[in-house]
Amino acid sequence: MSSIDETHDPRRTSWVASAQGHPEFPIQNLPLGVFSPPNGSPRGGVAIGDQIFDLQAGLEAGVFSGAAAAAAEAAAGAALNRLMALGGNPRIALRRRLSELLSADGAERRKVEPRAGQLLHNAADCTLHLPAAIGSFTDFFAGIHHARNGGMRRDPNNPLNPNYKYVPVAYHSRASSVRPSGVPIRRPSGQRKAAEDDAPIFGAAQKLDYELELAVWIGPGNELGQPIPIAEAGEHVFGLGLVNDWSARDVQGWESQPLGPFLAKNFGTTVSPWVITTDALAPFRIAQPPRPAGDPRPLSYLWDETDQETGAFDITLEAMLMTEGLRAKGLPPHRMSASNTTDLYWTLAQLIAHHTCGGCNLGPGDLFGTGTISGPTLEGYGSLMELSGDGQRQITLGSGETRTFLQDGDEVIFRAHCRKAGCVPIGFGECRARIA
Amino acid sequence: MSSIDETHDPRRTSWVASAQGHPEFPIQNLPLGVFSPPNGSPRGGVAIGDQIFDLQAGLEAGVFSGAAAAAAEAAAGAALNRLMALGGNPRIALRRRLSELLSADGAERRKVEPRAGQLLHNAADCTLHLPAAIGSFTDFFAGIHHARNGGMRRDPNNPLNPNYKYVPVAYHSRASSVRPSGVPIRRPSGQRKAAEDDAPIFGAAQKLDYELELAVWIGPGNELGQPIPIAEAGEHVFGLGLVNDWSARDVQGWESQPLGPFLAKNFGTTVSPWVITTDALAPFRIAQPPRPAGDPRPLSYLWDETDQETGAFDITLEAMLMTEGLRAKGLPPHRMSASNTTDLYWTLAQLIAHHTCGGCNLGPGDLFGTGTISGPTLEGYGSLMELSGDGQRQITLGSGETRTFLQDGDEVIFRAHCRKAGCVPIGFGECRARIA
Repeated sequence: MSSIDETHDPRRTSWVASAQGHPEFPIQNLPLGVFSPPNGSPRGGVAIGDQIFDLQAGLEAGVFSGAAAAAAEAAAGAALNRLMALGGNPRIALRRRLSELLSADGAERRKVEPRAGQLLHNAADCTLHLPAAIGSFTDFFAGIHHARNGGMRRDPNNPLNPNYKYVPVAYHSRASSVRPSGVPIRRPSGQRKAAEDDAPIFGAAQKLDYELELAVWIGPGNELGQPIPIAEAGEHVFGLGLVNDWSARDVQGWESQPLGPFLAKNFGTTVSPWVITTDALAPFRIAQPPRPAGDPRPLSYLWDETDQETGAFDITLEAMLMTEGLRAKGLPPHRMSASNTTDLYWTLAQLIAHHTCGGCNLGPGDLFGTGTISGPTLEGYGSLMELSGDGQRQITLGSGETRTFLQDGDEVIFRAHCRKAGCVPIGFGECRARIA
Repeated sequence: MSSIDETHDPRRTSWVASAQGHPEFPIQNLPLGVFSPPNGSPRGGVAIGDQIFDLQAGLEAGVFSGAAAAAAEAAAGAALNRLMALGGNPRIALRRRLSELLSADGAERRKVEPRAGQLLHNAADCTLHLPAAIGSFTDFFAGIHHARNGGMRRDPNNPLNPNYKYVPVAYHSRASSVRPSGVPIRRPSGQRKAAEDDAPIFGAAQKLDYELELAVWIGPGNELGQPIPIAEAGEHVFGLGLVNDWSARDVQGWESQPLGPFLAKNFGTTVSPWVITTDALAPFRIAQPPRPAGDPRPLSYLWDETDQETGAFDITLEAMLMTEGLRAKGLPPHRMSASNTTDLYWTLAQLIAHHTCGGCNLGPGDLFGTGTISGPTLEGYGSLMELSGDGQRQITLGSGETRTFLQDGDEVIFRAHCRKAGCVPIGFGECRARIA
């Protein structure tokens, strides 16, 4: 389990000048990803300020040894899966070594800085890819305010299904259509049926929506038939990112009984390309917020004292919308909502323990979405379905434009940050895509 | 599109003696799979009688050329995905060449038969693997009698959801836990709640069931955002097999709202290891049975005249149960049901056209289950849920034992055959697994 160490020291600065005060990638973050430099092939890298440290180049320069070298080797290719498979210790060794190499005050600076031209690339010149070959993508429903908002139309008096407070509800989603930030999303066609119509029609979805979720990248995983106990489950989280679980609400409403959403979700999913390791997030761990009085205690396979005390994270999330109208007026993206991962009803360890409790096997590079993270009030609603009351309320943007659902050309941008007194704030980078 | 050619000629026999009259694998079948010979690594093979033709050995012996060699090369490794990606023509060329090589009367016999020791392995000595690295596994709900039986408990007057006759309903299932025939299945634990209880409990599933389905192995597939038109969809079927979609009914009943089944299905899925190509199945193509009077015509993206005329298959399916009691008395497996793929409400092309209509991308090695194929009456019900009326009716076996759901040690065996006047019958081989 990662702990707070010298890599989190707020006094540590980097010889990479842009890292100081960088809102996302100071030396305390060091997220991992896969990128292509100009005219280069995909390879593993580490974000530092506005630069990317090239792990392949680092190996060639011989700046790694021991466990850090093994980890860099496993992360240097076109996907991080092999590093994800190694578990915590090599990942932590790599983080410590990268922090030394990039530190302004470290003994390594004299050796490494002269080679910056070889080791670093301007991030703006690079292409970012998916961080892993995604074996399976599971989408949970752990944002309780979102679950409640979604259930209000079915039964305003009992918006949560009876299982909600016992079961970390989830469904399998589609891995093949997950794309990294920046790849445009095509509006899907599908069947939809208005309540007043006798039969469905087929055509472009009219209620295209986004969903603001946390991405969980799975580490070592388990063999089929061998559940991961809750006390060990946290060690299988490699790192976190952001997911936009694009949703066609009109398709979803018609197709989902009795087997759940399918085409409404599988036309495309956007993830942020940088993986914020659980090691970088160690200072931002908090206790899972206590359940409201009257809620049941989780069943014992989902209950662990240490997990309850340290298994949640304090991460603020924002959803922004950019439109043609805002662009034309030179206005910034419109902030649609802000919420926090404390609005999740389950810890990440609980999601993993539940997913595997019947024996299902997880593997390195598997992706979880937590489900939409909405705050308790309108300002925190993480989807247009909730913000617009399923299209009943117009949302007015800074440009004077209005929206209920997404229009072609709209661009959705998610951001996430961790802030805490005595710590250097870190960010997740963007999860962004435009409707083509 | 494959057509009926000399490879289907009923007069053709093989110099592999066991192929003559073989109930599954005469020379007219030639299914593809992945196997390991004793002390050998996994490789592509073709079933012929009680032997397996080794494609790697065939390449080494130089018996392939041109398109057949390209196909054999793509199929010779530890997964058939590369062959699946090539589409129909190389696959058909390989089939024709294999039929020539193995034919009793062909000009090639003198060259090939003396090398039989190198080219053939006794199937009984080999291990069979999954035929492909499964990218994604989608499970449909296209067996209308099963859908109706399942809905009877919810609403006996309207057992089918309003979308059923318009939408080829499906959900994403779990690829990582699919295993080939013969690998035991562990009874999963999970949450279940009896109607009379206030809260759920966690423990071993009590209502463990099987589901008899057809497996569809996907060929070339499509790019994200590029739907496959119905008229082209059939070309993306590489071949067929059998799926046992094991289901924990008590877990399913409690967890499935609102996002569908999850842990109830992802603890294990069994597939038959041999892929019966659509080329082998060409003689058994039939017209899709007409919809009952009053049913709506499919929406236009699901409608193609040629598909309606030739897009269904006449395949009989059987589910058998072997128990400790039957074994102890020396009795054969108990036949639980027999049904036919004509009980599917949608053609395979309709499933593919629907899956991709919003842009979702399919890839070589993707697996579809059709959904449970039940006949219209009790004799044809393809799951214990249906046969036992959700546990209300005891099923008496030949041994005098009774069952409602599966007990530990029970073994479920699926078989499938195609029979037609003027044709040599072919079979699918077994899909078999025991509850550990």
